[in-house]
Amino acid sequence: MCELLGMSANVPTDISFSLSGLIPRGGQTGPHKDGWGITFYEGLGCRTFKDPQPSYMSPVARFVQEYPIKSEAVIAHIRQANRGNVSLENTHPFTRELWGRNWTYAHNGQLKGYNTLSTGNFRPIGQTDSEKAFCWILNQLVTKYPRTPSHWPAVFNYIAQLASQLREKGVFNMLLSDGRYVMAYCSTNLHWLTRRSPFGKAKLLDQDIEIDFQQCTQPSDVVSVIATQPLTGNENWQRIEPGEFILFYLGERIL
Amino acid sequence: MCELLGMSANVPTDISFSLSGLIPRGGQTGPHKDGWGITFYEGLGCRTFKDPQPSYMSPVARFVQEYPIKSEAVIAHIRQANRGNVSLENTHPFTRELWGRNWTYAHNGQLKGYNTLSTGNFRPIGQTDSEKAFCWILNQLVTKYPRTPSHWPAVFNYIAQLASQLREKGVFNMLLSDGRYVMAYCSTNLHWLTRRSPFGKAKLLDQDIEIDFQQCTQPSDVVSVIATQPLTGNENWQRIEPGEFILFYLGERIL
Repeated sequence: MCELLGMSANVPTDISFSLSGLIPRGGQTGPHKDGWGITFYEGLGCRTFKDPQPSYMSPVARFVQEYPIKSEAVIAHIRQANRGNVSLENTHPFTRELWGRNWTYAHNGQLKGYNTLSTGNFRPIGQTDSEKAFCWILNQLVTKYPRTPSHWPAVFNYIAQLASQLREKGVFNMLLSDGRYVMAYCSTNLHWLTRRSPFGKAKLLDQDIEIDFQQCTQPSDVVSVIATQPLTGNENWQRIEPGEFILFYLGERIL
Repeated sequence: MCELLGMSANVPTDISFSLSGLIPRGGQTGPHKDGWGITFYEGLGCRTFKDPQPSYMSPVARFVQEYPIKSEAVIAHIRQANRGNVSLENTHPFTRELWGRNWTYAHNGQLKGYNTLSTGNFRPIGQTDSEKAFCWILNQLVTKYPRTPSHWPAVFNYIAQLASQLREKGVFNMLLSDGRYVMAYCSTNLHWLTRRSPFGKAKLLDQDIEIDFQQCTQPSDVVSVIATQPLTGNENWQRIEPGEFILFYLGERIL
C-alpha cells in the first residue's frame, strides 16, 4: 500500500507543512520506503520531483521541502511496492497529456486481473498495475470524448464510474488532476479538509511541527488538502466514503 | 535562440562537469535567461528538473549540480524565448510517451509557418513553435509506424527527414532521446565529442574548472557529449554539418 497527498487552492500555495507530515512516513514513521514523488502545477505547466529512494532519506525530498514551490494543484505519493519493482519508471505520480493539458495521477492500492485492460495508444512505460489502470482510464476518456469536452463535472462523474470498475479488481484509492480540478476517489481510505478564513493553528500528528496559518495566508485564501490518513490532530478531517469521490476546483469542493 | 546539451554513455554517468559549463550561459555568461531544464534517464524511467528562472540563479539548477544523478542519456536546454512567453509549460525539454517509452526532445531555433503542422492526438500544452514541432514529429511517427518499430536506425533516418522539413521553416537544431538512443540534428550549430580511454584532463571554456576524467572513469567507459558550442577548450569537438544528424547508442556514435 501507499500514501497519497493532494492539494487544491485558489492561490499559488506552498504545501511544505503537509509534506513534512508525509515525507517521514516514507520509510521512517511509516513503511512506504519504495520511492516517492510529487507533481506541482504552475499554470498549464507542471513539474514532478521523484525518487525511487525512501522519501525520509531522499535528497530530492529535502530539496522540495527547502525550496517551497507555490502551486494551485499538487499530487504526491509515497510508495510501498507490490506490483512492479522499485525503479523510477514505477514511481508515482504519472503524467500524460490529454486534450492539450497535463493529467497527473497517483494510486494507492492493488489490483488483480488488470492485464486485460485495454489501453489503446496510451502504453504503460513501467510494470505497475497503477500505470496500466491510468492508461486504461485515459483510453476510455479519449474514446468517449474524442474532442475536448466542455462540461467537466460530467467528465469527472464518468472517471468515477471507471474508478468504480477498477475498484472491483481490488483496492483503488486515486488522486487525479489536470491542474485546475483535483479529484479524489476513495476505495478504502481517503480524508480531506478545507482551510479558509478565519485560519487557525495546526499541528502535525507525525512530527512536532505546528503552523499558524493566520500568519501566512490572506483572508480570501481557500486551500483543500486530501490525504490517505489525517495529517494533523486538531483539525476536522472528513472521511470520503468507500466508492465515493469528491472534486475540487481551485480550492473549493464542487462535487 | 537557446543552447542544447546532450549526453549518451555506456554506464550511468554524472554530467555535472558539462552542466557547470552550460548553467552560467543561462543569464550570466550567456543571454539564455528564459528558463532551463534537464531530463535524466534511468532505465525506462526519466526525471526532468526545470525552472522558468534563469539557470545561473535557479535553485533547481544548484540542486542538480550538487546532487549528481547518474544517467546513460541526458537532454538539457537553456532558453532564450522567442515564440511563447516565459513559463513552465514553455520550458524545454518536453517528454511524451510513444511506443511505451519516454521520448524527450529539446529544440534550438525558431520556426515560421508552423501553425499548420498537424499534430493529431499529440496536442501541444504550451505555446512554443518547439513543442508544436515535437508533436508533429510524434504524430508523423505514429502514422508511419502504428506498431512499435524494430529497425531503429531507419526510424531515426525518418526523423531526420522530418527535421529537414522543419528546417525549411527556419532554424531547427534538435536533441531527441528515448533513453537508449540520443539523436542530434544540426540546422546551424551543434558540436560533439566522445571521451574514452585513455582519458585526459578537460578544462571548461566558461568557468575556471578543470577535471581529470582518468580519476572518475573505468577504462571501458564511453561517454559522448553534444552541445551547441564546445564546452571545453582543449578537446577535439567536431561540428555537425548543417542538414546532417548523428545518432548515439549507449555512448557510441552509430550513425
